[in-house]
Parts: sequence; C-alpha cells; structure tokens
Amino acid sequence: MKIDHIVQSQQFTVPMIWNLFERTKEMEKIVRRGGTKDYERFIMASLFYAPSTRTRFSFESAMYRLGGKVISTEQARIFSSEIQGERLEDTIRIIGNYCDLIVLRHHEEGGAIRASSVSRVPIINAGDGSGGQHPTQALLDLYTIYNELGTLEGLKVALIGALDKGRTARSLAYLLSKFERTKLYFIAPPEVQIKEDILEHLEEKNVHYELLDSADKIISEVDVVYQTRIDAERLIDKKIDLGIYNITKDFLKKMKKNSIIMHPLPRSVEISRDVDSDPRAAYFRQAENGLFVRMALITMVLDFE
Amino acid sequence: MKIDHIVQSQQFTVPMIWNLFERTKEMEKIVRRGGTKDYERFIMASLFYAPSTRTRFSFESAMYRLGGKVISTEQARIFSSEIQGERLEDTIRIIGNYCDLIVLRHHEEGGAIRASSVSRVPIINAGDGSGGQHPTQALLDLYTIYNELGTLEGLKVALIGALDKGRTARSLAYLLSKFERTKLYFIAPPEVQIKEDILEHLEEKNVHYELLDSADKIISEVDVVYQTRIDAERLIDKKIDLGIYNITKDFLKKMKKNSIIMHPLPRSVEISRDVDSDPRAAYFRQAENGLFVRMALITMVLDFE
Amino acid sequence: MKIDHIVQSQQFTVPMIWNLFERTKEMEKIVRRGGTKDYERFIMASLFYAPSTRTRFSFESAMYRLGGKVISTEQARIFSSEIQGERLEDTIRIIGNYCDLIVLRHHEEGGAIRASSVSRVPIINAGDGSGGQHPTQALLDLYTIYNELGTLEGLKVALIGALDKGRTARSLAYLLSKFERTKLYFIAPPEVQIKEDILEHLEEKNVHYELLDSADKIISEVDVVYQTRIDAERLIDKKIDLGIYNITKDFLKKMKKNSIIMHPLPRSVEISRDVDSDPRAAYFRQAENGLFVRMALITMVLDFE
Repeated sequence: MKIDHIVQSQQFTVPMIWNLFERTKEMEKIVRRGGTKDYERFIMASLFYAPSTRTRFSFESAMYRLGGKVISTEQARIFSSEIQGERLEDTIRIIGNYCDLIVLRHHEEGGAIRASSVSRVPIINAGDGSGGQHPTQALLDLYTIYNELGTLEGLKVALIGALDKGRTARSLAYLLSKFERTKLYFIAPPEVQIKEDILEHLEEKNVHYELLDSADKIISEVDVVYQTRIDAERLIDKKIDLGIYNITKDFLKKMKKNSIIMHPLPRSVEISRDVDSDPRAAYFRQAENGLFVRMALITMVLDFE
Repeated sequence: MKIDHIVQSQQFTVPMIWNLFERTKEMEKIVRRGGTKDYERFIMASLFYAPSTRTRFSFESAMYRLGGKVISTEQARIFSSEIQGERLEDTIRIIGNYCDLIVLRHHEEGGAIRASSVSRVPIINAGDGSGGQHPTQALLDLYTIYNELGTLEGLKVALIGALDKGRTARSLAYLLSKFERTKLYFIAPPEVQIKEDILEHLEEKNVHYELLDSADKIISEVDVVYQTRIDAERLIDKKIDLGIYNITKDFLKKMKKNSIIMHPLPRSVEISRDVDSDPRAAYFRQAENGLFVRMALITMVLDFE
Repeated sequence: MKIDHIVQSQQFTVPMIWNLFERTKEMEKIVRRGGTKDYERFIMASLFYAPSTRTRFSFESAMYRLGGKVISTEQARIFSSEIQGERLEDTIRIIGNYCDLIVLRHHEEGGAIRASSVSRVPIINAGDGSGGQHPTQALLDLYTIYNELGTLEGLKVALIGALDKGRTARSLAYLLSKFERTKLYFIAPPEVQIKEDILEHLEEKNVHYELLDSADKIISEVDVVYQTRIDAERLIDKKIDLGIYNITKDFLKKMKKNSIIMHPLPRSVEISRDVDSDPRAAYFRQAENGLFVRMALITMVLDFE
C-alpha cells in the first residue's frame, strides 16, 4: 500500500489504518533491534516554517531509525535576506530536488495541500495552520488507543479542553467515528465546546455523542480520557472554575481500572504531576508511539517495491 | 585535479571548468543510482552567518548523496551568549578540528578568503557579502547553459534585472567571457545597469556586449535569458514601467524555440507563473543542477587519491 | 567503566579520569584512521536552550566520528507556538523516546541534574547556567594539560581573569586539586578574584595556592597559564590597568620553555594574535582535544558491553 502524500486524516480509510498499524508494530520490533538500514539511500527534508522541536525530533529520529538521512530547518520563513516569503510552491519545487521526502510544518491552513499539488517528492503534513490538520498526530493518538486497549470498537472516549480550537481532539473524534459503536463525550465549558461541523459529521455517521460541561457523570464509564489544554486566557472573564477540568489523583480514583489518560503534550496545569506514575497515564507512551507511527508513515510514502 | 579552497569564480580556468563538468555528469549518474558511500568518513560543516535554507540544503544534500555527514548552523553569528562576534579566523581554526570541509556563508565581502587563509580544511564559499562572491552559483549557472544547449561557444546571452548589484549576473558574465564568440546583452533601466568593472573586463577580452534598456531588439535572437530581480524599491521615484522587464507568455512567444530562461531564484514578479510549464523555462532544472555541481565541487576539494 | 549521566565534574574520581584519558587516546587513533562505525545504531540529541555553535559542533562531530546520528536544536526554549517553556522534565521524558543520549545545554543552574533525574537515556551536561557546571570543558582542559606536559603531578598553574564568575577556571582548579603537589596561582584584580568556596576546598585538600593581582612574580615558574576573559565591563569604574592581564609577546618571553598557554575560547583581547604561532600556545590544540574527550565521554555513557 503506497501513499503519494499525507496531508489530512480524512484520506485514511479503515483498511489503510490497519495497514498502518501493522507496519507500526513492525517498526517497534525494528527499533528494539537497533534500527534498520533499509532506507539509507533516502534523504528527508524537515521544512518547518516555525519551530516545533518535539514533532521535528520525532520525524527525524524515525528517519534515522530507518537508516535514512535528514536535512533540516526550523526557520523556513527566512529563506534569504533578500526575499522574505517566497511562494511556498516555488520552495517545494526546489527543495524537492534535494531530498526524497518533505516533512512540512506550515503556518497557513491548506499549506500541505498546496505543497503536495506541485511536489515531485512525497509531502507529509506535520501541521498546517492552527485551524488546519496534523494527521500524523491523529494517527498516533488512534494507534495509542488501539495499542493500550486492544480494540477500536465499542469505546467510550471523553475529550476534555478547549475543543473548539482543539486540532488534535477534532481529528481524533473524526477518526474514531469510523469504528463501530464509538461513544464520544465532549467535556468543556460551553464557550469553547466542540464545533458544529464535527457534530454534523458524527450525526451523519450515527455516532453517539454527548456535550457535557463536567466529566462527573461519565468519568467512571469511559475507556479513554483525551485531555487537552483548556485555554484559560480566553475564559478569563467568565468566572468559571476551570480546576474541575484538570486531571488529579481524585479524578483518577473515579476512573475504571482498565482505562487510559492521553494528552498530545506539551501540558500546562491540566494534568497534575502526581498522575504521571499511575499505569493509566498513557501520555508518555503516546509520545513514544509517535516514533513508531511516523516510521511506518515514512515507509508508506517511500516504499520502493 | 585537487583544489584547496573554492573562494571566487575567477580561480576557475577553462580546463578546471571542463573537469568540473565531467565530474558533474558523473554525479548525475550517482544520484540516479541512489548515491554513493565513497565519502562516508567525511564531515562537512555548514557554517552560515545568516540563514539561506535553499543554498544550505543544496550543499547538505550533496554531501549526503556522497555518503558523508553534516554538522550545521544558520546562526553562526551568535557564537555564545558571552561574546558576540568572535573573529572569523578563530572560529574557522576551531571548527576545522570538527570537520573535513567548511561551507561558509559570511556576511562580509572577503570573508571566504580570510577564512581560507587560516583554515586547516577546505573552505567552500557559499556567498560572502552582498557585493562579494558566490562561485558555486556561478558555476551551476554555467553548467546549466552547457547542459541545456550543448555548448558554451558562440552563445548570445541576455542578462536582465538590477545588474549593478546582481552578484549572480556579474559572475556569469565573467565566466562566459572565457568562451569563444560570446555575445552579452545587459538589459536594465540605466539607473541599475551593469557596472564599469565588468565592461572593462569584457573589452579586455574582446567580448561583444550591448547595453539596452529593453529586450525588444534582441529577444528573438538570444540563446539564453538570464532573468534576475529588478529591485523595484530603488527605482520607485523614476516613473519607469518596470513591467517591460518581466517575462510573460508574450515574451516567450518572441523567443527562439531552442533557447532557455534561467533565474537564480527566489523570484518575485519578474517571471509569471504561467511561464513555468514551457519547456524553455530552465530555472527549476537549474536548481536541480545545483545539487550535482556542488557534489562535484565537494569531490574536488576532498579528493583523497 | 559505564557512567549513567555526566552532570558535574565532581563525579569524576581519579581512576575515572585515567580511564577517560585512556579512552581519549584511543579516540585520537580512531579519528586518524577516519572514524569508526561502532556506534552507528545510536542517535544523539543536541538539546540546546541557547546557541553555542562551537560546543554543539564538537559534540556532534564526536558522535559522527563514532558512526552515530544526531538530531539537533539550538532553540529548545521555543518548543511550540502555544506553550513557551514546557517543564524541562516533561521535555526530557519525551525527547528520550527519540534518541539514545541527550546532550543538554540549559540556561538554569541545576538543569542537568533535574534532567538526569527523570531521563530514560544518558544526559551529558554541555553547560547549565552561568554559575553552573560544564564538566566536559573541565575534563578536556585537564586532558590538554596531561597531553601537553605528560603529567598531572607537581604542576604550577596560573589562572588569570575574572575568576569569581569563571566557570571553567573554577572547575579546573577543582579537578587539579585531586592531583599530588599541585600549586595554584589565582591572578586577578581583587574585585573579581576567585571565590571563597574554591579556596576552602583547596585548604581542605592541602593544596598550595596564592592570590595575586599580577602574574609578574610567578610568570617564569609556572607550567600552565590558563587565561580567561577579564570582564572589563564590570571593572570599568575601577581605573585598573587591565592590560597587564593580557598575554603578549613580552609575557611569552618570561615564560618557561616547557610551559603552555591555554584558553577556553572564544577570546577577546586577552591573548594577542601574535602569540598564536608560538609552540606554547596550546589553545587551538585544546579545542581539538574537545573532540577526542567528548568522543570518549560518549562511549562511557553508551557502552553496551
């Protein structure tokens, strides 16, 4: 299964997701064995228009574990002292001469699609715009759920935070809607609740969902708590007790034994440090899965057989 | 043919240029085959005092295709929080301990020569100062003409733009003057025409040239149009119609079938997007040649036989 | 001899230092032979919270000469556009998934110890805080003395500069106190003399030391002059002739034949350029030793037997 570009999570069908997860399992084994040299003749370009060290490191480590090479910038906006802001399309055409794969973090929504329309090498979208896509994050989130719980069917998932602007929560809701008997709980102050477009999509797909302003009612039932930032600054005038959205030791006590807490990271105060040692705290394992999923995605766009 | 340092285009004699072009052809083949490991024990340092992602990527890709390794900075000016602006000579002496080759982009004219005077490893000048040299660009431009047209003799070449400050156009004129029966047409508003020093050089060498303020007269005759930026800001008070210097579909119609359009890139408005699909638009192939020429140049300074 | 983390020079006992020096000699041979591939399955992360190109290049070159790979940032403070300043502990836990070793330059004193307390991979401290530690610099300084003079016993060492804030001079004094019959001369204007904590440590260890405001008295006796910056800005109101602390040709004339001048670099005016060609000027060889010592230190934390 060869993919030309990875630009948005919608492009992944269920069979593609299973193919990805099989490859990901294989990548875990490869990393345990110390990596491979299978991709040693390939060069990946990290073309980041803004710094995002963690995402970049995760992709670059993935490429190195596969045996490949990396050229890298975190300041692609400053292309030269003479012209600031060359057109993305020109840049992509030129950089495509110097590599076999471009990992692109662009500041404008739709940047990855524009890039893929002119590129001679595969584009992997590593985030485009704040309202845009970050498909590899969504896929690693989904993989983490599968890997931790052993299934993607019949799951009850609570998503917490400022969901209206939560790119990762939105993408995950979208991907989970593809699987049987999913139940979604969107937990947020009404001012920052998930937007209508996602809800319409869920209704079309007949996915059960509930909008809640507290986790109390469902906390003991859910299989996954997907925690994100609450964006306190936007709510500063609302006199809402935002503390109720934080995950603490007390919150943990009410959760099922066989459940997990996830977070796309970095976190602020929304998960207390003393939660870290609980086996249900899956967020650091989630970050580790980022490596394996990205290795698998790289092989899907580069595969030369 | 071993070169100690590559600091200015003047150091390249015609035999050296042919040797370079032979190597470049070989590099094209090596890249098609997926690269080589011949240089795997070598480390290149990209020492950029200002960002220039495209040039840097082109060199780093070249080194990786040769099998080598790269250490890289785009902010060499900030050497430490304590001392800003260590002397270039000290920096070069120290960095020379950590690599086998330094690719230097320096902000001062003459930086590359100063560096080469103290360096224990080869220096390749990747641009020094706005009025300085960028020899690898000049050589890849020359190679592109040779590769596209099959010869460097008897060529008619139009150079368009703000030629007085056009480092790449100036260097190319210089290199072309070494070949038989070259005719050069400098096309620019008089305010930004090519400087006397180049014209004196051409007269010495008996090279035919013309200064024109429009391409109209020669457009249907030339083999190469070398387009550069027109630097509109400097001409803003002059009430000149700068649009006549842009290359459009109409401009193309008047050009010979067997001719090419080049540009050092990045471009602004001086070449319309709808020109890109014409086979005579050679500027993206020119960027690709940058890879092969730089690979060849790296082998010329590193060669260990 | 396997070390978990390298965070401060105090952790090195004399037997560890000899083990390190043996390995360092081995590394010199390996580099002369063109490097090794022994560590090709390892990835090093350069996690720099502030740029320090020279130190970073030295570590990255070391890793490449060992055959390994490198992921690198000089702007780790800007972790994402959303959260500035993620907790160091979270960052380390995540980055540890993407590499086998983290080289950390942190802006806060104690950063390296905090990092090592949560890290799943070895941490090497590449400088933490201005009042903190830079153990690999201290060890390469010590190695340089040993390599140049053939012994670490019975040495007379003059340390010059703003010693109260001189991280490197302080660390070197500390390490030298471990060896027999060391005599130390601290030469500085009283306003910036070495601090009490070091002197107390030397008294405990029965190390002979003298505080001097000029090198005159001991210049002809010492084996090593360790020159550092004098920090003229802090002394601007004091009407002190700082020129007497600079090393010039005249200073050289008074030094023993079999002695050396060292400097952690970068230098400002405190060593004249015309001293560079004297065989006693050891500071560029000192920088080269940085490569070998750091290679050896990397093998000490990675060793897999």
